[in-house]
Amino acid sequence: MLPFGLPLTAEGLLQLPATKTISRRLSDMRGYYADAEAYAARLAAEDSLIYTFWETEYTGDTRGLSFGITEIVPGTVGREFHMTKGHFHASDGDEIYLTLKGRGKLLLQTRQGEARTYDMTPGGICYIPTGWGHRTVNVGAEPFIFVSIWPPHIVHDYESVQKYGFPQLMLQGDSGPVEAPNPRYQAG
Amino acid sequence: MLPFGLPLTAEGLLQLPATKTISRRLSDMRGYYADAEAYAARLAAEDSLIYTFWETEYTGDTRGLSFGITEIVPGTVGREFHMTKGHFHASDGDEIYLTLKGRGKLLLQTRQGEARTYDMTPGGICYIPTGWGHRTVNVGAEPFIFVSIWPPHIVHDYESVQKYGFPQLMLQGDSGPVEAPNPRYQAG
Repeated sequence: MLPFGLPLTAEGLLQLPATKTISRRLSDMRGYYADAEAYAARLAAEDSLIYTFWETEYTGDTRGLSFGITEIVPGTVGREFHMTKGHFHASDGDEIYLTLKGRGKLLLQTRQGEARTYDMTPGGICYIPTGWGHRTVNVGAEPFIFVSIWPPHIVHDYESVQKYGFPQLMLQGDSGPVEAPNPRYQAG
Repeated sequence: MLPFGLPLTAEGLLQLPATKTISRRLSDMRGYYADAEAYAARLAAEDSLIYTFWETEYTGDTRGLSFGITEIVPGTVGREFHMTKGHFHASDGDEIYLTLKGRGKLLLQTRQGEARTYDMTPGGICYIPTGWGHRTVNVGAEPFIFVSIWPPHIVHDYESVQKYGFPQLMLQGDSGPVEAPNPRYQAG
């Protein structure tokens, strides 16, 4: 990585030749939302964009820093807010999130079933230690955008989350987001 | 490090028990400013605060992330803008800066004398690879605040910068900041 100074936006990061753009549509999220009927009905109507991330994975030695931006489109599937798939780090490596825009939640879980939830609002920092599976959720009416920074060469484990989800669901309540237990959840 | 979610402010970081507060006053910056007379005159009047940083050095293995906030008070010593001392990383380790508030510049140099300067404005990211000595400068009229993130256990080398400075000086011009060569500079 060379030195650089850029706007911390998708357009800024795309000036770096190594930046990859990854989009997740509704069809990529099969099995992730609790309400399977609502999922099928929405997918039949349109394969909507749920989130996009732009990332530059550092490919040198282990003392660089990888980084990216995630943008989650506002909306729900049934009552469940749009969210990322979520993953564990299968290798050691902590991660930092900094919220840029919108209103989100960070869901964390350990493999033993401990769960924590943090607010993500602009100007906030979240620290995700190795061992905590993490998912982000847009609980606002606008796009929710945050930065991630992580040490290079982390191995991502998406499978455990795909199978069991998170202990907590983040649902649209009558006056804002409410957390509910996930009936499908099992500790990995 | 445990998981946490906090405001990315001095008050937020001070909720973490390991956070250290370090202040640099004018008297700590002897020899750093180009105009020695202006320095002595200002110091005789008042030992002003130049900058403060709040940092949490990660003390675990090498796969965590250290982070901090720096706030540089606006002002000049002679025509030279308030700045950090600046340092090299004597061990491997890259660093990321994210600007939160105000208007700054990032000065970079290699030990061979190559120099680069980047704007630091809110919503911007700068990447500082190993081998590039770095200093930040407040070129605005308001406090300049940014976040740093770096891999743990970096060894800092302040000595080279203290001796030779940076190739470039950042000075108050008639209509904004201007860069000038540093007459005292020698490649380390």
